[in-house]
Amino acid sequence: MDEVFVSGAAMTSFGRFLERPPRDLVEEAVRDALSDAQITPADVQAAIVGNAVGGLMQGQESIRAQVALRNTGLLGVPMINVENACASSSTAFHLGVQAVAAGTYDCVLVAGYEKLSDPDKTKSFRAFNASMDLDEMRERFGPEAGADRSVFMDLYASMGEDGGAEDDGDVEALGLISVKNHHHGALNPRAQFREEVTLEQVLSARRVAGPLTVLMCSPLSDGAACLVLTSPRFARRRGRDRVRVRASALVSGRGDDGAQPDAVERAARHAYESASVGPTDLDVVELHDATSIAELHLYEQLQLCAPGEGARLVVDGTTWLGGALPVNPSGGLLARGHPIGATGAGQLVELAWQLEGRCGDRQVEGARTALAQNAGGWVGTDAAACTVHVLTT
Amino acid sequence: MDEVFVSGAAMTSFGRFLERPPRDLVEEAVRDALSDAQITPADVQAAIVGNAVGGLMQGQESIRAQVALRNTGLLGVPMINVENACASSSTAFHLGVQAVAAGTYDCVLVAGYEKLSDPDKTKSFRAFNASMDLDEMRERFGPEAGADRSVFMDLYASMGEDGGAEDDGDVEALGLISVKNHHHGALNPRAQFREEVTLEQVLSARRVAGPLTVLMCSPLSDGAACLVLTSPRFARRRGRDRVRVRASALVSGRGDDGAQPDAVERAARHAYESASVGPTDLDVVELHDATSIAELHLYEQLQLCAPGEGARLVVDGTTWLGGALPVNPSGGLLARGHPIGATGAGQLVELAWQLEGRCGDRQVEGARTALAQNAGGWVGTDAAACTVHVLTT
Repeated sequence: MDEVFVSGAAMTSFGRFLERPPRDLVEEAVRDALSDAQITPADVQAAIVGNAVGGLMQGQESIRAQVALRNTGLLGVPMINVENACASSSTAFHLGVQAVAAGTYDCVLVAGYEKLSDPDKTKSFRAFNASMDLDEMRERFGPEAGADRSVFMDLYASMGEDGGAEDDGDVEALGLISVKNHHHGALNPRAQFREEVTLEQVLSARRVAGPLTVLMCSPLSDGAACLVLTSPRFARRRGRDRVRVRASALVSGRGDDGAQPDAVERAARHAYESASVGPTDLDVVELHDATSIAELHLYEQLQLCAPGEGARLVVDGTTWLGGALPVNPSGGLLARGHPIGATGAGQLVELAWQLEGRCGDRQVEGARTALAQNAGGWVGTDAAACTVHVLTT
Repeated sequence: MDEVFVSGAAMTSFGRFLERPPRDLVEEAVRDALSDAQITPADVQAAIVGNAVGGLMQGQESIRAQVALRNTGLLGVPMINVENACASSSTAFHLGVQAVAAGTYDCVLVAGYEKLSDPDKTKSFRAFNASMDLDEMRERFGPEAGADRSVFMDLYASMGEDGGAEDDGDVEALGLISVKNHHHGALNPRAQFREEVTLEQVLSARRVAGPLTVLMCSPLSDGAACLVLTSPRFARRRGRDRVRVRASALVSGRGDDGAQPDAVERAARHAYESASVGPTDLDVVELHDATSIAELHLYEQLQLCAPGEGARLVVDGTTWLGGALPVNPSGGLLARGHPIGATGAGQLVELAWQLEGRCGDRQVEGARTALAQNAGGWVGTDAAACTVHVLTT
């Protein structure tokens, strides 16, 4: 595998933008990423675009990339529409990395976007919930499941119960994860939520499912993110060769209840081996905190701590900005927001910027090795798709 | 680029299967393709799946591959959901070819499926029409466009007018293309329509748009198709190394009205160059006859004849079975059927079988070099996506 560089990275603010059509969000991210990479549309040899719910939300079932990129000057090159639920755009990134590593292209544009907010929240929830096998969802939650809420919060809550998260210490850790990520989000100009929250506010907020309050759950969001992947030759010619992709792992969940190791563990193992990097080498992590419970579990699944030690990482400050291993300095899904198809690309944009030292108040000092984990959908008791990427300077 | 082999190929019948859920169709195609390749699910290292309208038709907006393949024993490997309208599964094939050619995998499963039929035809048409930029469609055809018909037939009809297809000779050629493809379909046990039609029947059938009668337009269909792509090492070990992929081209349309060369021409040029094969080397072609007008235009766009000579090819028998260059021996979209996300993979299955001499009554004798062309969606006056593949023995 040849080296692959991230030569450009950009994203819109994440938030609730009822007045902005998807194309408007995508155009902003693409324009800024091309500018960041110091290239023009004519330099781009292929475009791979992740979006999860544009069919149910906007009715644009097909050729979403061609429609969203129509005014960018990119039409003509191979365009591939990729979907893997909340891992759609990290899957697109995975494909882009493979194509550049193989020597197929010198310059690939990867983008992700989502317009999930709608005056009718029922529509948003239904679209979001279609990241589960619909037959399985109806069997598990009843025929009318998912019209008034995200069933994913129930699924995460049941993970909490399985993992014993109902005991007081763990509930406090779940709350602190939310406090931490909102603290980080307050430092991120592109975050959906820029207000600090206290532990008391988090714990006393409206209950959504199991131990999860609304402040421990990711919101409905809109946004777009874009990255430019390049070969060494291309990157060096432009002087945009600081951030390297060292590993790109994608797996699907096995679907059979209780299969071990699960998707995250398999993807992480593959990425660590492929990058010759271990958890102790990491300086900064963006992970898929769809809920606080997810982040707590991911500490272990990514081997950031010993089994059963997850809560400690947030209680003792390790995963806070300023700690030994800041996790979700962007604010994560909880505070930066979770525009499904843009989330994975957004994590990678954050890490590219961290490795370039461009993150201002939320900069992780001296960040040289970074990991992104992104999960999408649900089969049985596991993520339907999981990606783990390692980037380094 | 390393050699890539098609080691297994299978498809369901195409047709109208109201009682069969998508998963049932996919399972049949996957099981038969694995069997054809003489492998088990454990041999498959990645799965790339094309589907176009499962969100609007079945509500399964996301993780369609994971849901459709759930019972095949394939869950666990990287799974990628790919969409490019009617070119969805040939785009998946393109990605699979790239991955094997790059040495990333030795064995990749590519599948395409669609369940487009529904008791409510309005739903099918709306889903189908969402392969156009919806804003453009409403601007062109009015706010209620596409509820009662496929606007693609209108788009193709306008191509006919631009190309002068309203004159008597060309209308007869359009009719003969339908007669030919229904003749071929009658020889294909997996075709949706297995009845011969006469020129008089075609020309006097219900008018759909412009010169197009209903027998000159592809139907609404369901179906699935699957291929196993392998490296030389893997293919030779299994003795499944007869069919090689010699070129895999994908482009997007440029979107600006009248851009030349158009997507088909660019993809074809790229494929011919890449395969070191010219139009005169071809023994058999499967092309995207969404309407008779499309097939007539494609004769020229693929350089199967000189400009203006398209009609001759069908009138003098060249493109009929038994002629010098049979086109759409499967029956094509017109007679075999057009289950959007399965169509491209279905074309490639037909060609793999032709090159292996397995096509019975519709076998093209001595077929050694084959071309597949598949188009998807619409931007401006061009296909949103177009693939051209060259396969050889």
